[in-house]
Amino acid sequence: MSDQPIAVFDSGLGGLTVVRSLQQHLPGETLVYFGDTARVPYGTKTSKTVLQFAVQNCDFLLRFNPKLIIVACNTASALALDDLIPRMPVPLLGVVKPGAVAAVERSAGRGIAVLATEATVASEAYPRAIHALDPNIPVIQRQCPSLVSLIEEGRSSDDDILRRLLAEYLETVKRLDPAVILLGCTHYPLVAPAVADLMPAATVVDSADATAAAARTLLTEMNALTTRTGHGKLHCYVSDNPQRFREVGGRFLGQPIREVTWVSPEQFFHEHTLHPAK
Amino acid sequence: MSDQPIAVFDSGLGGLTVVRSLQQHLPGETLVYFGDTARVPYGTKTSKTVLQFAVQNCDFLLRFNPKLIIVACNTASALALDDLIPRMPVPLLGVVKPGAVAAVERSAGRGIAVLATEATVASEAYPRAIHALDPNIPVIQRQCPSLVSLIEEGRSSDDDILRRLLAEYLETVKRLDPAVILLGCTHYPLVAPAVADLMPAATVVDSADATAAAARTLLTEMNALTTRTGHGKLHCYVSDNPQRFREVGGRFLGQPIREVTWVSPEQFFHEHTLHPAK
Repeated sequence: MSDQPIAVFDSGLGGLTVVRSLQQHLPGETLVYFGDTARVPYGTKTSKTVLQFAVQNCDFLLRFNPKLIIVACNTASALALDDLIPRMPVPLLGVVKPGAVAAVERSAGRGIAVLATEATVASEAYPRAIHALDPNIPVIQRQCPSLVSLIEEGRSSDDDILRRLLAEYLETVKRLDPAVILLGCTHYPLVAPAVADLMPAATVVDSADATAAAARTLLTEMNALTTRTGHGKLHCYVSDNPQRFREVGGRFLGQPIREVTWVSPEQFFHEHTLHPAK
Repeated sequence: MSDQPIAVFDSGLGGLTVVRSLQQHLPGETLVYFGDTARVPYGTKTSKTVLQFAVQNCDFLLRFNPKLIIVACNTASALALDDLIPRMPVPLLGVVKPGAVAAVERSAGRGIAVLATEATVASEAYPRAIHALDPNIPVIQRQCPSLVSLIEEGRSSDDDILRRLLAEYLETVKRLDPAVILLGCTHYPLVAPAVADLMPAATVVDSADATAAAARTLLTEMNALTTRTGHGKLHCYVSDNPQRFREVGGRFLGQPIREVTWVSPEQFFHEHTLHPAK
């Protein structure tokens, strides 16, 4: 049993879809979220840079003495998790492996299509994770670079431009006739209905829900579930623009965000020096 | 006369449209470009953060002993230039004022519509700059958040989705029946033909060309034009992902980019400490 918080980070606000799932699977847990909104997005950046940012994000979150850090960012999970784990004194959980497990379970051996950012696709992390579970499953990947921006604009599944763009992204994917569409970016669950409409024969799987379920399993194994009942608190921290985070993030969390704290670069980097990660 | 280089920075690769114009207006000059690709984009970030990034970018560029620093980023010009100028030991030129001057010249007192990022629009820098020249000109602003992403995907003026999105952005703008559409983001010149098609009665003005012309005027006044003839060299530096910069940036520069140097965070921040800006 442990009343320490679960820490979660993402490049920006997309990881709030993971928080939403965590609140469903683990309602009593205290959650501390960090969104690196000063340097968002990570999806066009290199693994070296994303790892450096991820180390700083974790160092910041370690101040809250968490029992677990969840990397609620597909790009950071895909590019940096393996190098991050040995540097951190607490367990880490990314979104790629749980997403891959859920996709393989529902694919019945048929094809899986992964929709993700430029960097996640290039990393090949999803095909690797899927093939580690079943080397015979056909996998196709497709980057959807402008989907994040359209979703942050407030467009949803019924928006004509968003649907047209998505249909174009899905064109190459259709050739595989996949059994599963795996949403490999934390923004995409907001347009899951449009994906389902455009690919009616496929099951849409998102990593957020799978990751929250995996977090519950892991904390149960660690005997580290909270003793508290009722709803745990959510504390949000960002490296920039708390106002925008509050305004846009509510749609990702599924409820209004009450309180967001801005972490100044001085706080962020100064403390980083005090807690070296290596 | 001065053979020192002209330094240019942008949040990423959009500023290469300014470099392209500089190469036309000032062909003999040596240019040093810095793209802050580790932290791109700036358009959703706060003025505090953008100023901090801009100071670091300038400090990096000061190592090249430039005679002038051009802030080839609309967001940084709009949010940070006024605070940047007193901190720097060399003259600075942003893109907002030259763009406003060019727009006012061509508006004949009629309306100006400014297309820009979220942060540039919120800063009101363009309306302020326009009204400082002529307080009676009607100005309308419109943020075009997803245009940058679609352009970086490689979509151009004839792309159906891009045109639909642009038409939607321009809907509110049409009400003003503006004489001038001012492209207040360095990415937008790449889709100027689509803007012109959708707004046939308006003149499309971009800040890149106006800024290059202003740079020539300023260097002439300073008696600091180069003595060299022939084509000056361009040196590009980025804080991340030189490969992507080279691949995508060529379209912005109008020619292939030969050589891009990655600046590691250690180089970037260490030297920053050696050259404090205050």
